[in-house]
Amino acid sequence: MLLDKIDGPEQLKTLTVEQLDQLAEEIRQFLIEKLSLTGGHLAPNLGVVELTLAMHYLFDSPSDKFIFDVGHQSYVHKIITGRKDQFDTLRKYKGLCGFVKRSESQHDVWEAGHSSTSLSAAIGMAMARDFKGDSNRVVAVIGDGALTGGMALEALNHIGHEKRKLIVVLNDNEMSIAPNVGALHHYLGKIRTGRQYQKVKEDVHQLLNRIPAIGGKLADTVSRFKDSIKYLLMSGILFEQFGLSYLGPIDGHDTEALLEVLKQADNINGPVLVHVITTKGKGYKPAENDSHTWHGASPYKIESGKMVKAVGPPMYTKVFGDVLIELAEQDERIVAVTPAMPSGSGLLDFASKFPTRMIDVGIAEQHAATMSAALAIEGMKPVFAVYSTFLQRAYDQVVHDICRQNLNVVFAIDRAGFVGPDGETHQGVYDIPYLRHVPNMVLMMPKDENELRHMMKTAIEYNDGPIAVRYPRINAEGVEIDPLLKTIPIGTWEVLKEGESEYALLAVGPMIKIAKEASELLIRDGIDVEIINARFIKPLDEAMLLRLAAQHKKLVVIEESAELGGLGSAILEFYAKQQLDDVVVRIKGIPDLFIEHGTIAQQRDEVGLNAVNIANLVHGMKAKRKKNAN
Amino acid sequence: MLLDKIDGPEQLKTLTVEQLDQLAEEIRQFLIEKLSLTGGHLAPNLGVVELTLAMHYLFDSPSDKFIFDVGHQSYVHKIITGRKDQFDTLRKYKGLCGFVKRSESQHDVWEAGHSSTSLSAAIGMAMARDFKGDSNRVVAVIGDGALTGGMALEALNHIGHEKRKLIVVLNDNEMSIAPNVGALHHYLGKIRTGRQYQKVKEDVHQLLNRIPAIGGKLADTVSRFKDSIKYLLMSGILFEQFGLSYLGPIDGHDTEALLEVLKQADNINGPVLVHVITTKGKGYKPAENDSHTWHGASPYKIESGKMVKAVGPPMYTKVFGDVLIELAEQDERIVAVTPAMPSGSGLLDFASKFPTRMIDVGIAEQHAATMSAALAIEGMKPVFAVYSTFLQRAYDQVVHDICRQNLNVVFAIDRAGFVGPDGETHQGVYDIPYLRHVPNMVLMMPKDENELRHMMKTAIEYNDGPIAVRYPRINAEGVEIDPLLKTIPIGTWEVLKEGESEYALLAVGPMIKIAKEASELLIRDGIDVEIINARFIKPLDEAMLLRLAAQHKKLVVIEESAELGGLGSAILEFYAKQQLDDVVVRIKGIPDLFIEHGTIAQQRDEVGLNAVNIANLVHGMKAKRKKNAN
Repeated sequence: MLLDKIDGPEQLKTLTVEQLDQLAEEIRQFLIEKLSLTGGHLAPNLGVVELTLAMHYLFDSPSDKFIFDVGHQSYVHKIITGRKDQFDTLRKYKGLCGFVKRSESQHDVWEAGHSSTSLSAAIGMAMARDFKGDSNRVVAVIGDGALTGGMALEALNHIGHEKRKLIVVLNDNEMSIAPNVGALHHYLGKIRTGRQYQKVKEDVHQLLNRIPAIGGKLADTVSRFKDSIKYLLMSGILFEQFGLSYLGPIDGHDTEALLEVLKQADNINGPVLVHVITTKGKGYKPAENDSHTWHGASPYKIESGKMVKAVGPPMYTKVFGDVLIELAEQDERIVAVTPAMPSGSGLLDFASKFPTRMIDVGIAEQHAATMSAALAIEGMKPVFAVYSTFLQRAYDQVVHDICRQNLNVVFAIDRAGFVGPDGETHQGVYDIPYLRHVPNMVLMMPKDENELRHMMKTAIEYNDGPIAVRYPRINAEGVEIDPLLKTIPIGTWEVLKEGESEYALLAVGPMIKIAKEASELLIRDGIDVEIINARFIKPLDEAMLLRLAAQHKKLVVIEESAELGGLGSAILEFYAKQQLDDVVVRIKGIPDLFIEHGTIAQQRDEVGLNAVNIANLVHGMKAKRKKNAN
Repeated sequence: MLLDKIDGPEQLKTLTVEQLDQLAEEIRQFLIEKLSLTGGHLAPNLGVVELTLAMHYLFDSPSDKFIFDVGHQSYVHKIITGRKDQFDTLRKYKGLCGFVKRSESQHDVWEAGHSSTSLSAAIGMAMARDFKGDSNRVVAVIGDGALTGGMALEALNHIGHEKRKLIVVLNDNEMSIAPNVGALHHYLGKIRTGRQYQKVKEDVHQLLNRIPAIGGKLADTVSRFKDSIKYLLMSGILFEQFGLSYLGPIDGHDTEALLEVLKQADNINGPVLVHVITTKGKGYKPAENDSHTWHGASPYKIESGKMVKAVGPPMYTKVFGDVLIELAEQDERIVAVTPAMPSGSGLLDFASKFPTRMIDVGIAEQHAATMSAALAIEGMKPVFAVYSTFLQRAYDQVVHDICRQNLNVVFAIDRAGFVGPDGETHQGVYDIPYLRHVPNMVLMMPKDENELRHMMKTAIEYNDGPIAVRYPRINAEGVEIDPLLKTIPIGTWEVLKEGESEYALLAVGPMIKIAKEASELLIRDGIDVEIINARFIKPLDEAMLLRLAAQHKKLVVIEESAELGGLGSAILEFYAKQQLDDVVVRIKGIPDLFIEHGTIAQQRDEVGLNAVNIANLVHGMKAKRKKNAN
């Protein structure tokens, strides 16, 4: 095994091209085996094996800077840079991160998780290099999907202007996370099919040969010529118009061709785009055949290609997708909007059922939000389905376009709260603080799938402005489903359990379960707490808060959300405004830290979001009160 | 006067082209006269007179949808649609809005203020039209500067994919708000110069004629041909590659040509881009000669073209620009980053002094932030100068790229708080709630220009992560400047005045003045309040908060910021965490509403951010306490 001898990129450099190919094969087997146990981003990494080896072979990391867009295709890079022995811990608590991680290795120079940041990083690093008078290379690897993100296009524009030496490798997969949408993808598609590319070349040659014979009207000739030659020039002209030199397209699994084109790119003293065609899942048939499913794989059986299915109730994501179909059958105004996440957002069935009412804009959260605003102005009911962490990209559009104009856009915010193995780049823990302060916004979270269904009904029926439902990346509770959908009065909470003590636990979403567990611990100590489902984060249930104050309750707010500016703060603000200074409020949320990968349970435990801790918090309040009474 | 007879677009339709030209001239004079008294976006509106008339002449607003990017070029549209008599109130409190405003007219269908949203709006409205089976036109007008914004490029990509009928008018000014940066602008520049365009056309013709004569090596011919024809094709190929038909470029002040090209565009059954070349400030020499200064004009003398200069101390913006030069002279790591706002951000002198250290990325806040992150990783000290309202565009980049990686990026957040006549789209009132909950962020606001200087020094010296200084869009206080710059210990507040009563006023920035005024009112009633400069919004001065609690102070927090999730909430959170339940806190900030245009004083009064109201709030606390005591 060659792989056994590779502890760092310097050991690659003595290999022959044949040995690089052998190493590529070994790495593929390594990835297929390791990920069958841990799960992970299999297909993207199988696609970049030769490319990553070629980069490390020719260039010199870490003095040369390798920037991987998103970073989920960095496994090969990790294997080469001394981390192959840690792959059993991939995406596990305190284990190897599933993305690039600066604390793991000096070879990891840029972290991401969200898409389309690599070109901004590349030009920033190239500028810093030039300011400092250094001469290192900067190489960014970006997928064709990520290139539709607005910030990548902003960066491309700036790169073309700056003319600094850097290499952009366009890793053009047949398919990125979802089938790409947009003209840019269409354009790449034209280049991609080598046959067409060749044919156009031939056409142009023939046309050129025919010109003398045609004679006659020159204008016609020019016109026909233009149509034909356009295709030839299109091969790189888009990027050339942005000011980058263009090389390619070449086969990203042909090591020799890769080495050749990267050498050429390195000889260009300015920005250059290298167009590399790769196959996601390359070398593992199940992944090649369905790179969509195998983008992020659960553990699987290598032989059969069967992934280990989770058992239990459906995910909240699926419940959302199903109820949206029911609602859309009744209400023609409904259209679904997704930024390249039809599968992740549970919208595949919706898309089959209502293909024209499914709008996939590509990786373009900003555009998705503002386009939804326009749809709402014209009387449609757009449902923007988006992960909590990705909606961050559209914060300004939410404020300026949707909430300021007070438009009837429905937000279906998936993966709210901890997300588990994707870790800190993907935690959905900021949407409460970044949405709560925006005027006109209504924000809900259901306690179970039955309530999610009613909340979606409520959101669709609501015609007074924007409204959001957030739900977690977990299996639903498995509760019984009401036969009929109903609306929930805006701003109303629900008492789930009355309590004889002076304590009330206010919780949202999955934290209600934890409140119930804490309640069971407390009852053993003789403390009978009230439990409230604080399902409207905005507006608050002010009547209930006033009742709690009148009953001299002491409140513990439990939220799987950044604690600063969250629901607990909203309740503190309310009582301050009401001059109700006797109410005691404690907040248990996520402290002011980024929380890394692990299971959701581990992440909750790390920050103390569990029953024991909540029970202790109540005991602490009790002790405190006694002390005060002394 | 033709203009006197125009109360709606329908009255345009009977005019001849000559009369349209006469009307254009009358509108120019109207704008020049009216804006000389009110100020406003003179140059952009003088540039689109013929274009706006042509649109209203040919098409049928409001059933046809006119979307103006940013909306500051909508004055002609407002004049035509029945609002010419309101121009004396332009940008004044309760007067005509300086942007498109749906509540003003049925002809105003899309509001903005931030750049680059029009294409998303256009495709959204076109899709809604098609869903509903309507047949109205959708016409978006976007400047060449706005086109560099990422979301406009996202939308362009989606428009090309959808192939729906809509018209994008590219209003290509010689200059947008600042000289455009980026390859895209370079590309437009190539098209713009008609002479070059013509020359290339001729070259190609000549080349075609020569081909038979050349004979010989075909490959050479193809190669030379390609180089030449490329320029011809470039005229529209960028947009054609995105999937839009391309018409133009044409002279945007030639009414006949405009009518012709818009008719052509209307005949195309798909997305079409009409490239119109206009001159900002057209028809008013001072504005034509310096469209930069005249983009947003103060009141001016028509004859001399002299704007009324505000008297008084320098703006905070200028103090920032000056101190950055001082700091940059000492510290080579410093580079300034601006998203197309070198003038508005006070960086023109910096740019002259350090041209290579001034990075203007165009309208591209997302890219600016993430590029700054990369500069910081490589040891530079980027100072990202940006308006509070525009930093909203980069919220995700602040969270995911800068704060999560804990990088030494300095944010100079201008126009924090109310901004006056630009109104609700530009209010800088959310940066506290959207930044405070992000881990690793330090957030400061100075009480005067002297402290701003020290805070900038502090920010540059700070090497533990991101740090932000926010300052308002007003003249500074006119205080004495310390001869030496110094650093302020992170997280320390300052007692400005001790007080014998149980009350303390905690204020930030310009609110300190209001606190002082309130204090003077209160002392007449025998209440001697403490005043604290709470200059670190994050981290809090916990020692001081503990001291205040120990002294049983009652606190009033005064902040020109959205109240939800602001500094007051931070203080409430702190005391809840510390279990200090006896402290009484009141928050006076901006309630949960969008606040429209007016003077800053009017905006403050509207929400009660004034001394009388603060004094009353303290009296209210006193009364309450007495009542409790009874």
